Amino acid sequence: MRTSIATVCLSGSLEDKLYACADAGFDGVEIFEPDLVVSDRSPEEVRALADRLGLTLFMYQPFRDFEGVSEGQLEDNLRRARERFTTMQRLGVDLMLVCSNVATATVDSDRVSAEQLRRLGDLAARHGARVAFEALAWGRYVDDYRRSWRIVEQTDHEAVGVCLDSFHILARGHDPADIEKIPGEKIFFVQLADAPPLTMDVLSWSRHHRLFPGEGAWDLGRFVAHVARAGYAGPLSLEVFNDVFRQTDTRRTAAHALRSLVWLEDRAARLAGSPGTLRRIPDAEVPTGYDYVEVKAEDTGEVERMLEALGMTFRGQHRTKPVRLWSAGDARIVLNEQHARDERPRLAGIGFGVPDATVVRDRARALAVRPAARRTQSGELEMPGFVTPSGIEVFLNDHDDGNEPAWVAEFEHGHPAGPSQIRGIDHVNVSHSREAHDEAVLFCISVLGLQSPPVTEAAGPHGLVRSQVMRTPDGGVRLSLNVSPAGVSHPDHVALECDDVVAVARRARANGLSPVLVPDNYYDDLRARFGLDDATLATLREHQLLFDRSADGELWHFYTQRVGSLCLELVQRVRDYDAYATDNTPVLLAAQDRADRAGTGREDGGAH
Amino acid sequence: MRTSIATVCLSGSLEDKLYACADAGFDGVEIFEPDLVVSDRSPEEVRALADRLGLTLFMYQPFRDFEGVSEGQLEDNLRRARERFTTMQRLGVDLMLVCSNVATATVDSDRVSAEQLRRLGDLAARHGARVAFEALAWGRYVDDYRRSWRIVEQTDHEAVGVCLDSFHILARGHDPADIEKIPGEKIFFVQLADAPPLTMDVLSWSRHHRLFPGEGAWDLGRFVAHVARAGYAGPLSLEVFNDVFRQTDTRRTAAHALRSLVWLEDRAARLAGSPGTLRRIPDAEVPTGYDYVEVKAEDTGEVERMLEALGMTFRGQHRTKPVRLWSAGDARIVLNEQHARDERPRLAGIGFGVPDATVVRDRARALAVRPAARRTQSGELEMPGFVTPSGIEVFLNDHDDGNEPAWVAEFEHGHPAGPSQIRGIDHVNVSHSREAHDEAVLFCISVLGLQSPPVTEAAGPHGLVRSQVMRTPDGGVRLSLNVSPAGVSHPDHVALECDDVVAVARRARANGLSPVLVPDNYYDDLRARFGLDDATLATLREHQLLFDRSADGELWHFYTQRVGSLCLELVQRVRDYDAYATDNTPVLLAAQDRADRAGTGREDGGAH
Repeated sequence: MRTSIATVCLSGSLEDKLYACADAGFDGVEIFEPDLVVSDRSPEEVRALADRLGLTLFMYQPFRDFEGVSEGQLEDNLRRARERFTTMQRLGVDLMLVCSNVATATVDSDRVSAEQLRRLGDLAARHGARVAFEALAWGRYVDDYRRSWRIVEQTDHEAVGVCLDSFHILARGHDPADIEKIPGEKIFFVQLADAPPLTMDVLSWSRHHRLFPGEGAWDLGRFVAHVARAGYAGPLSLEVFNDVFRQTDTRRTAAHALRSLVWLEDRAARLAGSPGTLRRIPDAEVPTGYDYVEVKAEDTGEVERMLEALGMTFRGQHRTKPVRLWSAGDARIVLNEQHARDERPRLAGIGFGVPDATVVRDRARALAVRPAARRTQSGELEMPGFVTPSGIEVFLNDHDDGNEPAWVAEFEHGHPAGPSQIRGIDHVNVSHSREAHDEAVLFCISVLGLQSPPVTEAAGPHGLVRSQVMRTPDGGVRLSLNVSPAGVSHPDHVALECDDVVAVARRARANGLSPVLVPDNYYDDLRARFGLDDATLATLREHQLLFDRSADGELWHFYTQRVGSLCLELVQRVRDYDAYATDNTPVLLAAQDRADRAGTGREDGGAH
Repeated sequence: MRTSIATVCLSGSLEDKLYACADAGFDGVEIFEPDLVVSDRSPEEVRALADRLGLTLFMYQPFRDFEGVSEGQLEDNLRRARERFTTMQRLGVDLMLVCSNVATATVDSDRVSAEQLRRLGDLAARHGARVAFEALAWGRYVDDYRRSWRIVEQTDHEAVGVCLDSFHILARGHDPADIEKIPGEKIFFVQLADAPPLTMDVLSWSRHHRLFPGEGAWDLGRFVAHVARAGYAGPLSLEVFNDVFRQTDTRRTAAHALRSLVWLEDRAARLAGSPGTLRRIPDAEVPTGYDYVEVKAEDTGEVERMLEALGMTFRGQHRTKPVRLWSAGDARIVLNEQHARDERPRLAGIGFGVPDATVVRDRARALAVRPAARRTQSGELEMPGFVTPSGIEVFLNDHDDGNEPAWVAEFEHGHPAGPSQIRGIDHVNVSHSREAHDEAVLFCISVLGLQSPPVTEAAGPHGLVRSQVMRTPDGGVRLSLNVSPAGVSHPDHVALECDDVVAVARRARANGLSPVLVPDNYYDDLRARFGLDDATLATLREHQLLFDRSADGELWHFYTQRVGSLCLELVQRVRDYDAYATDNTPVLLAAQDRADRAGTGREDGGAH
């Protein structure tokens, strides 16, 4: 289906928005009237620019408070409409969005509304235009799409149809299945937005918190499948009011928006049994696990000393690049000093094992993800890669069950893999800005097929940290996306899963590696909360371990001090513990803050 | 009454918080348990530090999910409580907050809850402690303070009383008048928070959006008056969970918090007919109007040319300082080049006329507002002044009805006041950071006695701008406090009221002063919205005027280009128009953005 977006979704001037939409690859846009009003370009100039850019101006919106009014009010409303149709003719737009009346309706009657819409339809037809009537979730009388359709059906005018907006339908909890009862040709337009699961007044929710499809709580694939089954053949258009997107770079948001629409259409196609109008993209292949993580720095020596102290093995030097590999069990850490002048250690890349890397590569291309280049010499493995919204590069490698990945053979002069208490990579924790977050969530969902649980929050000394752990169903990949308060930088971290975290901690300390120090008060609190016995508490305290318990099991874990913008976490999951001990996050944040202030662990960032 | 604050209100470590509370002048604090748990200081150290700082540790909180449980669960809850009482003994705290059960309650019975609280009371008494039972707004069974009091009454234990939290009572819409039915000695603690008028789930509202008293929508003066009339003699304690305060400088927030409490106690004293326990401060005196505004710059020449073009009069040079005065009607603009090296023009100060400046000065001192110094020579007028949270200095001058202020005589060698179409200062528009906003609102309310209408929002090209117009009842002073999106700076502006704004615009243009340019589309939109006739539209367009209409009248206005971080607005209120044409703000923001990008008006700031 054709792709569209309302200009209100984006920041910048109307011109900025049109350029960005064309660059992203949209087929067209809805012109949000206030964007035109504040623009110094005439409607004719806007039309000409859109023409040159290959963008269709699908709809002009919104026209408010039209129907269900007194006769005197109707006359003024028709006068207003006439002015708008004139503007639309100058723009070359032939469809106007009419929202159900919020402010001036006084007559709660389908018949009256239908009559009044018929007069609007006549006026529209005289201007060569049509109108799409939409039930706002907070319309005074018309707040349900089934009623707006009933009114349009009664109107029985070829220039009057409905506009369906997923927000207004799903926010009210209305079943979208009845969309299929509307003849496709009477659905004049479809607007799409997702939303987080908030409980608040629907107007504020709508105006400030909408999300692009895939980023929220709703099943928009099912919504679009209903629309397609109804026979709708117009564009799918995003209308997302969101305070963050209004502040984010125009082009970046436009690209992000189109990705959500491509993903959504594919999802709907799969649900709808692929009616011809819905385009599919290559299948999603869920990663089987972490292939490796890559740490970049001018000098990775500090990290190597840390890995050695934890009992990992130096596996070799890359045969053509200043890159070294360390491993333990299935945990592989690549240390990269190439093109890293003046850089302190940071998480630079993540490799995932996937069933077939070329399929994922093709899917990512269809989703217009920015590719990352890995310079390969002859005989070296080619891996498709992408730059994530967080700036971290992701590479994909065919998973070869039970064997080390083939690229390991590119590393020479190291030691063979030895036994270790470290079994693999448990999860990776990435911090990014508020602006990058929703885009990163969509990347994980659309490209990698990860799932998203609700957001959790933890209080740090300089504000709340919000986390969303994207994961595969089996937990083979868990990727925690974190947003820190503005002006505060928390280290990324790589969590290594251990068979015996106490043994790893003991070994680390014997090798001179000091963990993040845990306050005594924490252990008193553990005793109170969990009723732990003295021996267990003594063990935890001796090794500065953190602890959590759920109905499914326990988590024992500790953190290393920050090196650059990176730290490691060592975790042991006891029984079926499946969570992340978020109750312990404030302890970590406070301890890191103390270390930063004391200068012992202070590195890139810290508070302020 | 004694003043207190929960440590959770502030950013930083527990030590930071204690120092900041002592500096601000609080009598004590509530220790929020998670703040202790993440601290590396032992309870004994915290106690000793508080002792040295002169802070009482009034309460330890929160203890959750105690009552209404099965017998087996109760045993574990008593075990948990025992651990907490031990910690409290180490801290030297003798009061524990017990929140009504949210997670584990299975028995909905006052009798059972009272029995279980009696056992907790026995345990507390053995530790020399008491417990304050609080009904959370989202408690499973107990969510109303009247029920928590009924249970405490049945408990009938000297170590068990109630804690009253204004949030939990007012968020549910419960009438606080019944507080007076509780014997004062059974109210063990009172927690205070204000809140904005949001419609959302009460848990999110509570956890993220609380405000300090005076900054939100509730009448907390009345709440505290009820508490005082009940005979409560304990501290008034702030418990404000707010995402912004968690990120704001600890000391600044603590000072801000104490100011809200001093203001609140005074307000309650006036409502309660001043029971002995409530302290009053000097009366608020509402400003009668603007005395002057002060613009500071290394070179104020550009501003002078603007004022001249608008028809204002140069009134003279200050006799001892590099300061010049311009006026028109009651609008006085002071141009200050003193100590302004490298500064571009900015709004630096506002003078208000008040009935008695010494009363306002004494009130501001009682509210611990930071004084601003005005260096005076012999024979020059002394004016009390303060630094506002926005960084602008505010000075107060006795209002002398109908006459020019006495300080005008300090300016020499200028022209006498002449006739002008400019009548006075209509309003002033100040931009500041999100972090400074609530504090600035409280400053206006508590020191100046201004009133606060709801927040409005306007979409700019780089995000939403939020405004709150603080004003006197008669509109003599209107002060718009604006928060721009992070990273975007909008100019402050001074709006001058005109008898005939068209004449002022004509004169300005004849003198070569170009206004902010308004797009043609705006005038098309005006015609559609208001049905303006061609002649009116032609006049508006010719002078690049903006227009608004309400039921009360019309506003005609225009803006000058930005100079430094300042612009002027010229407004004419027709009939009884009493608003600010916020619908026109997006037009202004877009036009300023175009000017900034073109470099014609670009100055300090702009977007990105």
